Amino acid sequence: MAKELKDLTSREEDYSKWYNDLVVKAGLAENSAVRGCMVIKPYGYAIWEKMHDALDKMFKDTGHVNAYFPLFIPKSFFSKEAHHVEGFAKECAVVTHYRLKNDPEGKGVIVDPDARLEEELIVRPTSETIIWNTYKNWIQSYRDLPILCNQWANVVRWEMRTRLFLRTAEFLWQEGHTAHATKEEAVEEARKMIGVYRDFAEQWLALPVIVGHKSDSERFAGADDTLTIEALMQDGKALQSGTSHFLGQNFAKAFDVQFTNKEGQLDYVWATSWGVSTRLMGALIMAHSDNNGLVLPPKLAPIQVVMVPIYKGEEELRSIVAVMEGIAAELKAKGISVKIDDRDNVRSGFKFAEYELKGVPVRLAIGPRDLAGGTVELARRDTLTKESVPAEGIADRIENLLEDIQRNIYDKALKFRDSMITRVDTYDEFKRVLEEKGGFILAHWDGTPQTEELIKNETKATIRCIPVDAPAEEGTCIVSGKPSHRRVLFAKSY
Amino acid sequence: MAKELKDLTSREEDYSKWYNDLVVKAGLAENSAVRGCMVIKPYGYAIWEKMHDALDKMFKDTGHVNAYFPLFIPKSFFSKEAHHVEGFAKECAVVTHYRLKNDPEGKGVIVDPDARLEEELIVRPTSETIIWNTYKNWIQSYRDLPILCNQWANVVRWEMRTRLFLRTAEFLWQEGHTAHATKEEAVEEARKMIGVYRDFAEQWLALPVIVGHKSDSERFAGADDTLTIEALMQDGKALQSGTSHFLGQNFAKAFDVQFTNKEGQLDYVWATSWGVSTRLMGALIMAHSDNNGLVLPPKLAPIQVVMVPIYKGEEELRSIVAVMEGIAAELKAKGISVKIDDRDNVRSGFKFAEYELKGVPVRLAIGPRDLAGGTVELARRDTLTKESVPAEGIADRIENLLEDIQRNIYDKALKFRDSMITRVDTYDEFKRVLEEKGGFILAHWDGTPQTEELIKNETKATIRCIPVDAPAEEGTCIVSGKPSHRRVLFAKSY
Repeated sequence: MAKELKDLTSREEDYSKWYNDLVVKAGLAENSAVRGCMVIKPYGYAIWEKMHDALDKMFKDTGHVNAYFPLFIPKSFFSKEAHHVEGFAKECAVVTHYRLKNDPEGKGVIVDPDARLEEELIVRPTSETIIWNTYKNWIQSYRDLPILCNQWANVVRWEMRTRLFLRTAEFLWQEGHTAHATKEEAVEEARKMIGVYRDFAEQWLALPVIVGHKSDSERFAGADDTLTIEALMQDGKALQSGTSHFLGQNFAKAFDVQFTNKEGQLDYVWATSWGVSTRLMGALIMAHSDNNGLVLPPKLAPIQVVMVPIYKGEEELRSIVAVMEGIAAELKAKGISVKIDDRDNVRSGFKFAEYELKGVPVRLAIGPRDLAGGTVELARRDTLTKESVPAEGIADRIENLLEDIQRNIYDKALKFRDSMITRVDTYDEFKRVLEEKGGFILAHWDGTPQTEELIKNETKATIRCIPVDAPAEEGTCIVSGKPSHRRVLFAKSY
Repeated sequence: MAKELKDLTSREEDYSKWYNDLVVKAGLAENSAVRGCMVIKPYGYAIWEKMHDALDKMFKDTGHVNAYFPLFIPKSFFSKEAHHVEGFAKECAVVTHYRLKNDPEGKGVIVDPDARLEEELIVRPTSETIIWNTYKNWIQSYRDLPILCNQWANVVRWEMRTRLFLRTAEFLWQEGHTAHATKEEAVEEARKMIGVYRDFAEQWLALPVIVGHKSDSERFAGADDTLTIEALMQDGKALQSGTSHFLGQNFAKAFDVQFTNKEGQLDYVWATSWGVSTRLMGALIMAHSDNNGLVLPPKLAPIQVVMVPIYKGEEELRSIVAVMEGIAAELKAKGISVKIDDRDNVRSGFKFAEYELKGVPVRLAIGPRDLAGGTVELARRDTLTKESVPAEGIADRIENLLEDIQRNIYDKALKFRDSMITRVDTYDEFKRVLEEKGGFILAHWDGTPQTEELIKNETKATIRCIPVDAPAEEGTCIVSGKPSHRRVLFAKSY
């Protein structure tokens, strides 16, 4: 591990390689034998479980229930919503057969040509179509509304260029799908859920985000409006971290889902959908980590406190571990997760490096001198600082420290993010800032997809969002010079 | 709902239709547009979530961690373990293409013939192959062992005859996959995990089970030994409810997973796998429910207590609901889930029937006379009895009652199960008991697959297991008359 750690590429040298090295070496995930599909390793999955549990509680606290819909979607369902098929047909896994058979030439197994499906099935890239086909049978009257369902599931999009967590052929996510009697209710639901994502990103991932609307061309395939949370990574690129869509009546019309409203009239149902995925793992890793490894916000760290005994001989080890077990019991009573690492086959320096790599927020070391003096050595991962403190009252101190660390990681990310938002008024300045500094750029845009595409083609920057809190401000588009009424947020992105 | 309830087929009339009606009408699951795939509805999923949480804790308490492996398995992986491919190749979903395109004739979308995969991918029916291919890179030395991973996932087996929860093309499950340095350790792990399943079935599902070994022909494809828990349904058929496999070195050899043992020698790794699925939902429903609907053990009931106000007019309703909210707060403080149903568009009789159908363990009704007299009407679902009790101390009473109900449901199932185990000594008696009574039959068998198959073909009964606690007993096979040393457990099964 010490050797592996030394091999960790630095951020400055190659940000992209640093990220990939870190994901693999910290034991979060790795590529599998299946192109574009990852294995989420236990340490990475433990973080995802914490995200799952926190989000799931937030969904339930806002009145949602979980359900489960089929993995497969009949091909014909895709054609029913015109934009949707455009968006997803080009990158999907298609099931065509339901049986293998022995190769008559004796080389393993082959697909049985006699077992061809009548209609091909698509492995879900997202579930609007199968869900709205189901909701059709659930909804007759306004009394059946709203439906507030969420699903935790795997989905597949056949991405050609994949990166662990950020873009994989298969990923894990949740997808909320709600049905409402009125447009106002659906719009409010989409707004509410992007708010849940913002709160989750800020309070759990320690990740400041900008909330806004997507432009027409960046919108979800089938939505009337897409809200997004956009985060900034340390290399100055944006990462779309969650989206919430107001789907209008598009899917209700595609699947003929009508209901009798309070006035006794038939109307189409209004819809939203919203999701976050294992991509958040990528955001978490890229936003906070450093050249020593992961930096995990305590609220998502599988191990919050690790204890390393510094000892010579069995007897010393036993005395130190006895003290540690006392502290561990106190911490566990406070709901803090603890590991005592008493392995005897690796040196403590190796252990220190390993837990830095793994981003354990707090490290506590006790040696014979500490034992004699009633002290412990307390190290925090986020600042890489350590101090000798009294063993007395250590559990309370650690409890406060974990809160400090959570806050500090967020503050640091916020400070960086805010330092990376630049307002520009000319296209030259836009290009210069993008080139020299990166980050978010607030600029006037004439609102046309033509200008948006020109900027994208020339600079690779896209409109990340039209921030919801963007103040009205008269100006002129940096490209066309046409009038604009508010600045929009540009960046290069993942 | 009242009408729907009336329509519930009775168990005596048509057990199979009763089951299906119940699953659909209680809002647990329904068939989807995709052949053999079900939609798990919110009420059904809420029960599955409780199973998930309880099992997940039991896995973690026994030292396991979760991880996630790819949905897809390269076709060639299947050929590597000879028995495994035999067991799973005939019923699998095969992905052959990765793109759709617009139909040149304008009829929606078609599979793009230019986007054929080089090697077909199988949607996992179980993950031994992809996981052992991954473990190969994780294991070098005995210090890397044991690996104790579990995965919560969806799997697909292309069943031709499907039934909600019991046998579906896609289902949800967990699959544990462990790797060990010694045979003894792996055998012990397989044994330990079938014990976890037994405890879970008995303590959570209130379902008594018989633990035993599968016969050679009923063993998991690729296992050296399969342990099973077998439950008995009310129609006298057995349901295999969970299995734990000792895989020997079969997958290690198929995927060349060797390690350096403590003695410095190379050896193949020893393996287990174990799983339970949404099939347990079927077991839960079939084991306890009656002609009025579901009977849920309190520990798995999404709503443990429902309160129905009996009132005339707004004012009376408000007074009653105020009392109910007080009781609800006390119950919630004890961790008991409560729902107050104050809907004004359905009668209370309708509500009573609905919660009976949904199997809510305890129902509490309060009317004006209760209000005046300081009483409540307390009804229990398992016995369909009710009594008027003092409102004073009601929370404590309910807490105890829920424990009583959990115990009573188990005791009832155990009593039934025990009454349905018959020892027979001749094949004629075997056939007669099977015909007239059903249930489990303990009989002597000569240990040959020929006899096993003959019995299966003639009677449809199979060897459910060779019970682990079967005492040694000399006898003769009911078919061949050859010597036998212990009785094995036969039954017709799901």
